[in-house]
Amino acid sequence: MRDVSIIGVGQTPVREHWDKSLRHLAVDALLAALHDAHVEEMDAIYVGNMLSGELAGQEHLGALIADQLGMSGVAALKVEAACGAGGSAAHAGFLAVASGQYRRVAVVGVEKMTDMWNGTVTSGLSMAADGEYEAANGISFVGLNAMLMRRYMYEYDLVEEDFAPFALNAHANAAHNPNAMFRKHVTLEQFTKAKKVADPISLFDSSPICDGAAALILSRSENLNGNTARAISIAASTIATDSLALHDRQDPLWLRAVELSSIKAYAQAGVTPQDIDLFELHDAFSIVAPMSLEAAGFARRGAGTYFGRDGEIAIDGKLPISTMGGLKARGHPIGATGVYQIVEAVQQLRGEAGKNQVPNARIAMAQSLGGVAATAVTHILKGKG
Amino acid sequence: MRDVSIIGVGQTPVREHWDKSLRHLAVDALLAALHDAHVEEMDAIYVGNMLSGELAGQEHLGALIADQLGMSGVAALKVEAACGAGGSAAHAGFLAVASGQYRRVAVVGVEKMTDMWNGTVTSGLSMAADGEYEAANGISFVGLNAMLMRRYMYEYDLVEEDFAPFALNAHANAAHNPNAMFRKHVTLEQFTKAKKVADPISLFDSSPICDGAAALILSRSENLNGNTARAISIAASTIATDSLALHDRQDPLWLRAVELSSIKAYAQAGVTPQDIDLFELHDAFSIVAPMSLEAAGFARRGAGTYFGRDGEIAIDGKLPISTMGGLKARGHPIGATGVYQIVEAVQQLRGEAGKNQVPNARIAMAQSLGGVAATAVTHILKGKG
Repeated sequence: MRDVSIIGVGQTPVREHWDKSLRHLAVDALLAALHDAHVEEMDAIYVGNMLSGELAGQEHLGALIADQLGMSGVAALKVEAACGAGGSAAHAGFLAVASGQYRRVAVVGVEKMTDMWNGTVTSGLSMAADGEYEAANGISFVGLNAMLMRRYMYEYDLVEEDFAPFALNAHANAAHNPNAMFRKHVTLEQFTKAKKVADPISLFDSSPICDGAAALILSRSENLNGNTARAISIAASTIATDSLALHDRQDPLWLRAVELSSIKAYAQAGVTPQDIDLFELHDAFSIVAPMSLEAAGFARRGAGTYFGRDGEIAIDGKLPISTMGGLKARGHPIGATGVYQIVEAVQQLRGEAGKNQVPNARIAMAQSLGGVAATAVTHILKGKG
Repeated sequence: MRDVSIIGVGQTPVREHWDKSLRHLAVDALLAALHDAHVEEMDAIYVGNMLSGELAGQEHLGALIADQLGMSGVAALKVEAACGAGGSAAHAGFLAVASGQYRRVAVVGVEKMTDMWNGTVTSGLSMAADGEYEAANGISFVGLNAMLMRRYMYEYDLVEEDFAPFALNAHANAAHNPNAMFRKHVTLEQFTKAKKVADPISLFDSSPICDGAAALILSRSENLNGNTARAISIAASTIATDSLALHDRQDPLWLRAVELSSIKAYAQAGVTPQDIDLFELHDAFSIVAPMSLEAAGFARRGAGTYFGRDGEIAIDGKLPISTMGGLKARGHPIGATGVYQIVEAVQQLRGEAGKNQVPNARIAMAQSLGGVAATAVTHILKGKG
């Protein structure tokens, strides 16, 4: 395999972008990434997106975005893996460069969840779950996560407040990220008084409905066109899957796809969990954070929330997570999120994360999940440091 | 790049499968392909599909199908490029093996267009066109093709009957393909008397709404696990794009993405159009056949229909097309079609095409288009012969 590097990153702020359609968000992020990489051309565009058909009445995003970018002609396609679409597009783009067929590839994750053409976000998100055996019975995606959180709390003798550190940490970090949706702190009191969205999940356990796009420029590492100084190496890119339906899992409290994808990634990168300096995990709901920390090998089973309680997830902690606000507070524009995570990891490894800079960040991990971790995509990035 | 071979193919008949849901169709095709390849495991599954969200209320097909196949854990994702989704999934699967990260990969194209959860096929297909500038004005996808055919007829002084050979050839070939939807001949009289669907496109110019799935098993060529004798080599796999909206094209009568993708494929395979023994082209509507023959370098501009008139597209002609019935008569289950084309090309190169066998077939080309050829995916396959 050819070594692959990230030579440029770009993003739009995560907002309710009422004045921009999906194609414009994607192009804004791509132009920023091209500018950052000091290049003007690429061979292919990989688009990560989940709901453009359901919400915008538009499929065929690959050719659409290539054309809008003024690069009609290049190879282009869309990759979908529910909420893991962004990470999956990055994986496909990585393999495209690693194969040798393409020299330089753009990856863009984009989602437009406001200003809908038809459908609703709730029915759209339910398509990440098993349509015939879960969604058809009327349960929403947040409902599935609520059942999981309830069982986790019962099994490990926890209360809602034990999950507060994940939300408070995400908001604290988002406060200093100009691209985050919620740029403000949340207190423990606010957390405990928040309304329930789907008991026991409250407002501050939930990522928001929002719009955004993020982009990467990937290049063969042996030909960085003068981008050597700021290039970040992709040391691992892996995907693993699990049953979509929670009731099909032998052990619903263990995210098997996260475990498999992480193990494969550590092997590919030649590192252990101890080597990871920061972890952009998929905190779509608070419950996913401790479960990801456990399955990825950072905390022992059932002890994921202690990691939050003991302050180990803060910027100056043992394993900083959601360093730019995470899904909770930077925002979770579904198919874009996995790419935002990688963009932010690159910012950290370059030392360009401002007030959120993790000291001496050298190796970062980003994990993009689809459904209740029925798809897990893991990237491990290495800086020069 | 590593050399990649196809070691197994499988397909369901193209039908209205009222008794099978999308996941069952996909698994039927995958099991047939695994059986054909004499293997039981793979590292990843690439799913080609366009409309599962719009029509079945189900996204996240990668993990869903992996689980239904009993292979939960493997890498899996969905690739979408409108009607070119199947070819694009094959391209992504090809790069995955070519990269060296995966030893063996399954590609499955699947579409379920009957028995809808919501939406309509017509509104779904319009998502292949430009939603904001074409579909929003009320034009359907067949309407766009009708405008193109009208202009082509005007420019080259043709009448509807000039397109008949494409439909008659497709139906004649489908008559001997047990997996085809329409296994019967059509006469010139039937063609000329057919009702218009969108003037000048008639019923016999149009591919049907249908269900189906087709699958490939791809392997590194250096490790065929005893499949050497029947393995077919992928000599080229390329994608190119064009504007989605017809009004954005400088020359709407020239399929630029087809030209670009074909030229790249000929270069990658080290062949010329004269070397191609059969061409599985994307005859979703009759008009696409002559335009593809021209842009891919087989006929001169405006002369694509002469190719049909002179009998050169028949099984014993100079360049057989739609050899198992094509989109017109085998059927066009959107995201599955590009994979069906490759399956059929493999059947030809193996000498397993029965009464439709192209004599001495050694090199085959398959071309999967999205929208009005806003995406063109070209594969060139080489047999042992």
